[in-house]
Amino acid sequence: MTDDSSNRVQVLDHGYVGLIDSMGDDLAIVNGARQSFNERSTEMDERNAGLINFLMREKHTSPFEQVQAQFEVQLPIFVAREWMRHRTQSFNEMSGRYTQLPRLFYVPGRDQIREQKGKPGAYYYERMEDTPRAEIHRIRIKNTCIHAFEEYENMLRDGVAKEVARLVLPVNTYTKFVVSANLLNWMRFLSLRNHEHAQYEIRVYAEAIESMLMQLAPVAMEAFVEYGRLR
Amino acid sequence: MTDDSSNRVQVLDHGYVGLIDSMGDDLAIVNGARQSFNERSTEMDERNAGLINFLMREKHTSPFEQVQAQFEVQLPIFVAREWMRHRTQSFNEMSGRYTQLPRLFYVPGRDQIREQKGKPGAYYYERMEDTPRAEIHRIRIKNTCIHAFEEYENMLRDGVAKEVARLVLPVNTYTKFVVSANLLNWMRFLSLRNHEHAQYEIRVYAEAIESMLMQLAPVAMEAFVEYGRLR
Amino acid sequence: MTDDSSNRVQVLDHGYVGLIDSMGDDLAIVNGARQSFNERSTEMDERNAGLINFLMREKHTSPFEQVQAQFEVQLPIFVAREWMRHRTQSFNEMSGRYTQLPRLFYVPGRDQIREQKGKPGAYYYERMEDTPRAEIHRIRIKNTCIHAFEEYENMLRDGVAKEVARLVLPVNTYTKFVVSANLLNWMRFLSLRNHEHAQYEIRVYAEAIESMLMQLAPVAMEAFVEYGRLR
Amino acid sequence: MTDDSSNRVQVLDHGYVGLIDSMGDDLAIVNGARQSFNERSTEMDERNAGLINFLMREKHTSPFEQVQAQFEVQLPIFVAREWMRHRTQSFNEMSGRYTQLPRLFYVPGRDQIREQKGKPGAYYYERMEDTPRAEIHRIRIKNTCIHAFEEYENMLRDGVAKEVARLVLPVNTYTKFVVSANLLNWMRFLSLRNHEHAQYEIRVYAEAIESMLMQLAPVAMEAFVEYGRLR
Repeated sequence: MTDDSSNRVQVLDHGYVGLIDSMGDDLAIVNGARQSFNERSTEMDERNAGLINFLMREKHTSPFEQVQAQFEVQLPIFVAREWMRHRTQSFNEMSGRYTQLPRLFYVPGRDQIREQKGKPGAYYYERMEDTPRAEIHRIRIKNTCIHAFEEYENMLRDGVAKEVARLVLPVNTYTKFVVSANLLNWMRFLSLRNHEHAQYEIRVYAEAIESMLMQLAPVAMEAFVEYGRLR
Repeated sequence: MTDDSSNRVQVLDHGYVGLIDSMGDDLAIVNGARQSFNERSTEMDERNAGLINFLMREKHTSPFEQVQAQFEVQLPIFVAREWMRHRTQSFNEMSGRYTQLPRLFYVPGRDQIREQKGKPGAYYYERMEDTPRAEIHRIRIKNTCIHAFEEYENMLRDGVAKEVARLVLPVNTYTKFVVSANLLNWMRFLSLRNHEHAQYEIRVYAEAIESMLMQLAPVAMEAFVEYGRLR
Repeated sequence: MTDDSSNRVQVLDHGYVGLIDSMGDDLAIVNGARQSFNERSTEMDERNAGLINFLMREKHTSPFEQVQAQFEVQLPIFVAREWMRHRTQSFNEMSGRYTQLPRLFYVPGRDQIREQKGKPGAYYYERMEDTPRAEIHRIRIKNTCIHAFEEYENMLRDGVAKEVARLVLPVNTYTKFVVSANLLNWMRFLSLRNHEHAQYEIRVYAEAIESMLMQLAPVAMEAFVEYGRLR
Repeated sequence: MTDDSSNRVQVLDHGYVGLIDSMGDDLAIVNGARQSFNERSTEMDERNAGLINFLMREKHTSPFEQVQAQFEVQLPIFVAREWMRHRTQSFNEMSGRYTQLPRLFYVPGRDQIREQKGKPGAYYYERMEDTPRAEIHRIRIKNTCIHAFEEYENMLRDGVAKEVARLVLPVNTYTKFVVSANLLNWMRFLSLRNHEHAQYEIRVYAEAIESMLMQLAPVAMEAFVEYGRLR
């Protein structure tokens, strides 16, 4: 499978997820599992679909490691910070030491100026009902970031090193990385990040990843959803 | 070994590294290695020191995994971002979703307003010689961050959720984490981060970690330095 | 915590599990978790026990990585093979390349000459009811192993390298390793290995590990059992 | 890339290594690295080859994780034991609990009945010069294994569970697994296993893997060899 710009899903105001490459599919999972019995299948059929469902239900997870998927992702730094807690993924990220960061930052839509409700351990979030107030905060976020980027660019113009000038940039600045992981690890990622407790801004990325994996290994991904994900 | 505030080293303007706990020392490495020969030592002596030197010289690294060290670290977010690329460490970090971040951010000292020299693949950094200009940039960094924190606090006061309001905070905001790793992994961390190519701001943290590990497992750490680190 | 021969539990006919060292306890888990809120506790109390139960119930597993435990284990090779599938553990094992393996192998007790029942995906095992037949198989296992060891020793006497002579040794030969892992990983190990689907011979080792961890971090381990383990 | 029996290399008397699938090649490494500079290449050229050489020389290893290769391997258990110490690989192995193991075991060629020379830390191995004596040991190995398999099969015939009967099988019995890892990890594997200190029997497998990776990512693999491997 090769790079194809049609494989790209837009996320948030300036972000995206694109599938770059992959290795294996449902059949690779089947053949990982059949290895235990010294067998091998050459095509997916009902019996093999049944095997995948059995594996997921019984949490025999190792065969799901035999599928690999690689994405390119553009995302705000604070989202990247949560994402990179997943330690069995392989990352190559754009570096603010070596590249001037483009003036690209995330401003939440009006519906995403959220208020926090509930109590510790059971927080939930609702949009700010008062639209004019929400709009004020959107503009505030935008202006604060424009100001930070202006100061960043002023420092660069005066010869300050990129690695120092970037200190003032906000955590909603967009960064970009290539990320590769096996399907089991992507499932663990989705279990935590495409979940109601995850912050909205990472959840929409996880939804994009999930829809792409659904095409790559549909039987496995449906079993994943069916059996309650990897909680 | 237990928490002791005297085990804390100040780093940068508001950061620190503190050793919280550890497991094992030079002798644990020796006994990891002696396991191959079905032997066990009860104290460090010249022969055992020689064994540790042999292990390091020949890069027989697995016995160094038998020592564990846990630190509490306060550090700017952009330093934490580099640190957390080390994927065999265990982290628990302060969360900007659940806690209001204190108005604590890193302002480089006058000597650390740096200019970038050299070319791709061989950059180096020098302090800005023109002191008044450097001072202007210091103040610029400080003021930009104060402004961002003011807007953050304004949003919080008006009921915006912490997880949204934090978007405007700069990447030099201080965060804090507990981190635990085995000695081999700490050595890999030091090989990359206490190195002339590392950014100054993470290098000073790596130096603090190195000095503390030097006390914990002196024979192993001296061998690590002696044999050119793990490059 | 230091080595103490009283910390050793006998397993199977010639095996054992001994706790060598550890780092942290229930309080370290609490303080890993409290880090999110920029807080720290100095002693376990009801509120902290409640926090650990909450973490386990909600599968917020990362704070459990802040506890480490190191064991010395003597076990048959076929058990070690299953054990070492757990890839976040640190191992140092006795080597048959460098050490002559002592004539030590596992012979199942009469109750452990088992027959397999059920069907693929749902096997179970029952002891062979016919005691004299079971006894014949016990003796058969014993004699086959004695013969293999005799041939091994014959080859060694004639100058064959240890790494070649060992080829004939059976997979029930005892080996020995030091193993270190964090508590979350031990819980994952126990979820799979102290489980009715695990082979009896690894399950008894997992039970020994579980009883020792129960002393090290009782609140966490009880929560682990209470909330259905990490399945 | 898909399974192709011509991709199979014979190793030892009954073993083999076959490339099953892969993801990425030299260009994927280049694009992992160029991500730092927010650039992307569409074909390999001299400049990109130069970049790969630079990455390897300076040990900037993370882009090499963007290539994945999956193999099927048939190998003696004692070789599998060393192989599976590599903890970032994904394995699915034939199970002696669920499958009757075929009567397939490794008998060293006459040149591989080795004697051990040298001293601890610097062993080396030479073939036993006395050919008739070497031949005696070959036959001894063969007969001991045939005897063990006969007893294994006797127990199976009498209804003993496979997981119990297998106890008597020697560590040179052939097993089989599917294994998947990224290129950086394969390089670490080769650095240790295609090395003069490695046991002959794993070294020949490592040579087979190396020759296949040489075809998959030739520029990276030549740089790996050129710059002294990952020691």
